[in-house]
Amino acid sequence: MPKEIRINAFDMNCAVHQSPGLWRHPRDRSTDYKALRYWQDLARTLERGLFDGIFLADVAGIYDVYGGGPETALRNGVQVPVNDPFMIVPAMAAVTEHLGFGVTGNISYEPPYSFARRLTTLDHLTNGRFGWNIVTGYLNSAAKATGLAKQTAHDTRYDIAAEYLDLMYKLWEGSWEDDAVRADKSAGVYVDPAKVHRVHHDGEYFRLDAIYLSEPSPQRTPVLYQAGTSPKGVAFAGRNAECVFVGARSKGALAASVRAIREAAVREGRRPNDILIFAMMTVIVGHTDAEAEERLRDYRHYASHEGALTLLSGWSGVDFSTCDPDEPVRFVKNDAVQAVLSNLTRPQSAPTWTVREAAESLSVGGASPIITGSPATVADALQSWVADTDIDGFNLTYTVAPESIQDFIALVVPELQTRGAYKTAYAPGTLREKLFGAGPRLQPPHHGASFRR
Amino acid sequence: MPKEIRINAFDMNCAVHQSPGLWRHPRDRSTDYKALRYWQDLARTLERGLFDGIFLADVAGIYDVYGGGPETALRNGVQVPVNDPFMIVPAMAAVTEHLGFGVTGNISYEPPYSFARRLTTLDHLTNGRFGWNIVTGYLNSAAKATGLAKQTAHDTRYDIAAEYLDLMYKLWEGSWEDDAVRADKSAGVYVDPAKVHRVHHDGEYFRLDAIYLSEPSPQRTPVLYQAGTSPKGVAFAGRNAECVFVGARSKGALAASVRAIREAAVREGRRPNDILIFAMMTVIVGHTDAEAEERLRDYRHYASHEGALTLLSGWSGVDFSTCDPDEPVRFVKNDAVQAVLSNLTRPQSAPTWTVREAAESLSVGGASPIITGSPATVADALQSWVADTDIDGFNLTYTVAPESIQDFIALVVPELQTRGAYKTAYAPGTLREKLFGAGPRLQPPHHGASFRR
Repeated sequence: MPKEIRINAFDMNCAVHQSPGLWRHPRDRSTDYKALRYWQDLARTLERGLFDGIFLADVAGIYDVYGGGPETALRNGVQVPVNDPFMIVPAMAAVTEHLGFGVTGNISYEPPYSFARRLTTLDHLTNGRFGWNIVTGYLNSAAKATGLAKQTAHDTRYDIAAEYLDLMYKLWEGSWEDDAVRADKSAGVYVDPAKVHRVHHDGEYFRLDAIYLSEPSPQRTPVLYQAGTSPKGVAFAGRNAECVFVGARSKGALAASVRAIREAAVREGRRPNDILIFAMMTVIVGHTDAEAEERLRDYRHYASHEGALTLLSGWSGVDFSTCDPDEPVRFVKNDAVQAVLSNLTRPQSAPTWTVREAAESLSVGGASPIITGSPATVADALQSWVADTDIDGFNLTYTVAPESIQDFIALVVPELQTRGAYKTAYAPGTLREKLFGAGPRLQPPHHGASFRR
Repeated sequence: MPKEIRINAFDMNCAVHQSPGLWRHPRDRSTDYKALRYWQDLARTLERGLFDGIFLADVAGIYDVYGGGPETALRNGVQVPVNDPFMIVPAMAAVTEHLGFGVTGNISYEPPYSFARRLTTLDHLTNGRFGWNIVTGYLNSAAKATGLAKQTAHDTRYDIAAEYLDLMYKLWEGSWEDDAVRADKSAGVYVDPAKVHRVHHDGEYFRLDAIYLSEPSPQRTPVLYQAGTSPKGVAFAGRNAECVFVGARSKGALAASVRAIREAAVREGRRPNDILIFAMMTVIVGHTDAEAEERLRDYRHYASHEGALTLLSGWSGVDFSTCDPDEPVRFVKNDAVQAVLSNLTRPQSAPTWTVREAAESLSVGGASPIITGSPATVADALQSWVADTDIDGFNLTYTVAPESIQDFIALVVPELQTRGAYKTAYAPGTLREKLFGAGPRLQPPHHGASFRR
């Protein structure tokens, strides 16, 4: 029996996410991102394709490393303009029944008390289909936007994140008991005060003394997503994450990341498969291999190398505008972007690229691998990535929106279903129950479950 | 020609807003507040009734003054559990075309850079139908929830608010020029970098140095709502507010507030009617006066005096549980709640109430006056409030949800239309254009317009 492959759409509340320049393609609709209808149409499409969820990235600042300023990010629309990702969820939830939502929220810029309530509200409104992608940020421009001189150091950010999460668990799991809300009209008791517990927190980074304002949502703690493969990041994932998003160009690097994450889970008393691991992937499918290759050639015609280097400079902190295009890319040790940079080698070529080659490669699908081919070719490749690296599925980037998602659903999904490697209907229940067959709440030995009374 | 009366629904993302106990009424559906469908049904109803908007209150803490703890707030569900008000807007926007949204956001707990983007996103998604009700908070419990010992002093809060607003104007009005987004596929220019201006702010309370992340939304600055009738609050309204929400039980008190607000606008170089003023009002309508009176009697049967005093204690900071029910209410000087407390006298009775009388009165419709009667009686009363106090319209509380709004639309709206005092169709354009016949952007001499290039 082949392993079921999980699929999320990887998107962002902007036009240009991972494929800079493709917004210029005649069939691309990504510049409609400002309209509710754009997101509602996409949500309906994804649910028709039985996607597990839509995973929404976000940045809290601008990519201003390349050229020492924001000019190229702006000119190419590289992840800017970018709107708030949470706001599109309720409208997508209103036109779907099963699709999950994984949304990026940066703990550096969200006060915990109000942020916890925002996520609880979304879990209520989606009927338990909400997930939170926990990030700590990597752009100095984001820090400066809030009055800091620069980012907090990477390891400190994870210490802050650990405390932040514990505080969230106190609010989500430890405050209201399951039967606190009675809504008993005849007794006149809406909430039983004895079952609502004040949250006290007096930590190194946060202090709070409050009654949590929201009643428990279907999942209480939303499904927890995380990315980042630094040692601190992996340890954090082992303790907190239920889904991890990884990016790697080579199966070897990916398999190593997956192994490290599963071992980190085990170190926290969890089973290796208590974490679902999604790899970033770009799929370009045609009815035949040749048609798909032709499609990729067409896409590359619109790709922006400048936009790609703007992304790479932002991720790495290195201004690639100062490099000779024919120079090899110098890899930079930078914990926050290690997942991207350490894998920027083409599996079948030399271990280093020139800057020009990196730009060309990154301009379609960003740092993800690209699978190009017929439905059978794509399915073969997806299954081999799963078999060879022990991942659970993919976060699919778009190239031309929404064409690449539509193509995937029309051509790849039926092929995977025929092979028994993709669901033919959604499982019942909340997102957590759909993903893990258990829930709707966090289950022991997950760290967060220990905060529940 | 009678003056057109503006109507907003006054609501909150919780079950118990202004009429504690009424959730127990057999026909009340307010406990469904956690479901998207509840809000979408309400939005469709309001648009059918040509309401100008829905005005969503919020609190950032719990009412824990009465009895020195949160018990009575919880037992009566008084504004707790309460979810995030912004999250229900996108789903309501998706099923309406004209309805406006005025949502309460507390500047004490929202970092300006990300909050500005959230509101811009909502203005995009609603196609320019978004408004922000600027509040600075009045509950110590909210301050403690964010690690402070207590609220910042009232006047200081308004100084902070003034600087906060200026920073928002810099982001909303001064950062991206109107034609910054070119999305020119053939030239390959998404944004013209020369037309996006870095925002520098180095003030007493906030510091920021950033490119704003969102492109201009239809209104740029959302329609600005404000409440509060303290001298500092009125001055703030005169400079910033486009709509002001006032609460007063007597026409005399209301007229005085209205006059002060319009004078404050004039002091800022604006016209008196550049601010639309909405009074809180509770309407209980029947086909006849007798039927309406019977309905009010029925409602009072479910009202909770304990819940009403929990609200009053929270607003005033005075623990009314320690008072003899037959004692007169002692008015408390408290700037933040002066608008409520200074008007807690019944116009036709003694200038002070007993605690018991105050509780009874507040338990249906909160601190608002109640108009009870046939459509003609109600229309007469609404028109006389408008004529006698110079307000522009009403924020209508609900008693039994959504029955009281449905009744208003079925019975009062046609009566007002017959009299020529209520629109028969929405005006075109954004919320600002609908309300003021001008826009979509802030117009000089409004202070915010001066930040636009």
